[in-house]
Amino acid sequence: MTEAAGTGVDLSGLRELNSLTVMRALRDNSPATVTELSQRTGLSRPAADVIAQSLVAGGWATVIEPGSSSTVGRPARRYRFRSTAGHVIGLDIGVHKVLLLLTDLSGEVVHSERRTVSADAEPEQRLAALDDVIRESLAATGLSASEIWAVTAGVSGPVDATGRTRLFTPIPGWADVDLAAHLARTFGCPVVVENDCKLAALAERWKGAASDASDVVYLLAGMRIGAGLIIDGVLRRGHGGAAGEIGALKNVRWLAAPSHLENCPGVPESVSADDAAAWVFDAARRGDKNAKTAVTKYVKDLAVGAAALVLTLDPQVVIYGGGFSRSADIVLEPLHRELARLCLRVPELRASTLGADSVALGAVRLALNELDNRLFNSTLSSPSAPRGNAVS
Amino acid sequence: MTEAAGTGVDLSGLRELNSLTVMRALRDNSPATVTELSQRTGLSRPAADVIAQSLVAGGWATVIEPGSSSTVGRPARRYRFRSTAGHVIGLDIGVHKVLLLLTDLSGEVVHSERRTVSADAEPEQRLAALDDVIRESLAATGLSASEIWAVTAGVSGPVDATGRTRLFTPIPGWADVDLAAHLARTFGCPVVVENDCKLAALAERWKGAASDASDVVYLLAGMRIGAGLIIDGVLRRGHGGAAGEIGALKNVRWLAAPSHLENCPGVPESVSADDAAAWVFDAARRGDKNAKTAVTKYVKDLAVGAAALVLTLDPQVVIYGGGFSRSADIVLEPLHRELARLCLRVPELRASTLGADSVALGAVRLALNELDNRLFNSTLSSPSAPRGNAVS
Repeated sequence: MTEAAGTGVDLSGLRELNSLTVMRALRDNSPATVTELSQRTGLSRPAADVIAQSLVAGGWATVIEPGSSSTVGRPARRYRFRSTAGHVIGLDIGVHKVLLLLTDLSGEVVHSERRTVSADAEPEQRLAALDDVIRESLAATGLSASEIWAVTAGVSGPVDATGRTRLFTPIPGWADVDLAAHLARTFGCPVVVENDCKLAALAERWKGAASDASDVVYLLAGMRIGAGLIIDGVLRRGHGGAAGEIGALKNVRWLAAPSHLENCPGVPESVSADDAAAWVFDAARRGDKNAKTAVTKYVKDLAVGAAALVLTLDPQVVIYGGGFSRSADIVLEPLHRELARLCLRVPELRASTLGADSVALGAVRLALNELDNRLFNSTLSSPSAPRGNAVS
Repeated sequence: MTEAAGTGVDLSGLRELNSLTVMRALRDNSPATVTELSQRTGLSRPAADVIAQSLVAGGWATVIEPGSSSTVGRPARRYRFRSTAGHVIGLDIGVHKVLLLLTDLSGEVVHSERRTVSADAEPEQRLAALDDVIRESLAATGLSASEIWAVTAGVSGPVDATGRTRLFTPIPGWADVDLAAHLARTFGCPVVVENDCKLAALAERWKGAASDASDVVYLLAGMRIGAGLIIDGVLRRGHGGAAGEIGALKNVRWLAAPSHLENCPGVPESVSADDAAAWVFDAARRGDKNAKTAVTKYVKDLAVGAAALVLTLDPQVVIYGGGFSRSADIVLEPLHRELARLCLRVPELRASTLGADSVALGAVRLALNELDNRLFNSTLSSPSAPRGNAVS
């Protein structure tokens, strides 16, 4: 007899498998009666009944007693997955900010916390801001660090197997930062570090503009342009974690593309370099000639790298995301025209629907995936087995 | 009770599944005794015994009687998969040739047949050469068209869902040729048409230079350059069959690369345009200055497109294949140097080991895969169920 630490649920052998099956059937669907659980899982009604009760005892499920609205027959109690049994954290550690999303097991955001960080801040300042948003978020939700079951952090640049960005990072001094180790000082749960573009792609596939597509090229467009790739429904990291880094090739012009906006004639001196692009997009909307030319040049260069990705992968959908995705109204149509000129087959082109939260949301999704692997992959031992937080 | 047409094997329900399990265990391994089959499959010894005998009766297996070399205990008979129970055909329909490989179910080449075709031949001439190699191959092996269980043909250009190359083809008049329909006039089995680069990639992964790699970029290098992609062990077609077509993007310079060889000063007038590249590679080996410069320029341009693929996918291995792969001795080293300059992470670079047969071999592999899907995917009905050819 084994018992997953603290769950109160007997998880030996077949019984374990059946418990997980019922748990999954509850989690991925609406609340269910024992009869419905039996139908969903193929287990006998008595077996489903016993397991549902043990899941309640273990803190994984709650009971919904039948209300007075039931009019026919004997009303049955229903069971609901207790998505607040545990929580995960998704982090976006960008050049200009640190953003934290704390969610329950269904991915519902319980708390979010953001700090602006200077682009040239040293790693220590950035890590201090990170520690700050973590501390604030735990305090605000009344959770302890040990009640967080998985943490994923997004950073710019290709992420290697150790969670470092040694090949390239736009953040000063960050190449040698061991972010996973830093977070492990606070959290006992598994910590994963992943590239920001890849996480944003995952988020759009989860609950954004790509939720119906299996082959997706995601463009993270801003003062730097990056890409995340979903192929056959799976996020692709590449052999060394560097998939999607087409921007490093000068010939595809992604390094040059944003400079057309930055260097557009007519940007007032009062507008900071960081805000110049937004000003240019606005001016172009108003019909400013210089701004319209700058946007055209930006789109032409953006399209070359996008075409390289499209010609390589032949995706169903290209998502235009990142900070510049607010300019989708004036970018998408000319971008589509350029892709039609450069590519053999033009995929659908869509604007991101998740905006500035996409990287942190993708981090949440990856944290939930990691947790799922621990929960539902019965061939894995569970060195840090999920715990219910309301268990006797 | 159902019976797969002509197999003589009862394939209903569990019995069917167990028969397929034993067949697969036999096919993918060396000959086995009933005891070994029981161990390989987890079936009881008596069950494995009955199934092995029914596979022999159905023509799927043969018996190897114990030889006199057995010295200890009672020698046991062994069963061997009868790989000659069926045959498949792989075709390479190129600009300059038609090549046919006829193999047994283990992929052993039983017969090969090749015809040279002029680059500007009309589709009718090409199809006539195709019909010719098919007729010759069947005559030479004594097989009838109905004894071929699967046919796959490789062609240049991205192949759409109908087996046509409407987006692009280098073969005059080929865009509207319905090759699958043409082959279906001869063969009753399923016919698949696929892009040549993709098939060559599959072949290298099957029994060539990429057999140990799951993430592979394959370069088909010749007077045209193409690419085939294997990601996570699976050949990727893209949403519309046009994955790998990076060469269509002018910025990556694949359209220009071979022209450096073609236009190299010093190529004798007696050398035809088709043979110019081979002459230049040879001259470069001999130290000819113009030839060395031409090869350097060729490699520099080849590397840009290769870098676009590498930066997009971050593969484990890049394979240099196709007609120009005979120049690997003078191309690989400078190509590696260029990739190191252009890419964030440089994959291993290897020369193809399959040479001119790679496309046809890949076609054989895809035909065998298609056959496997029919044989072993019990959720599919089998409209054209494989037949044993030695069945009562």
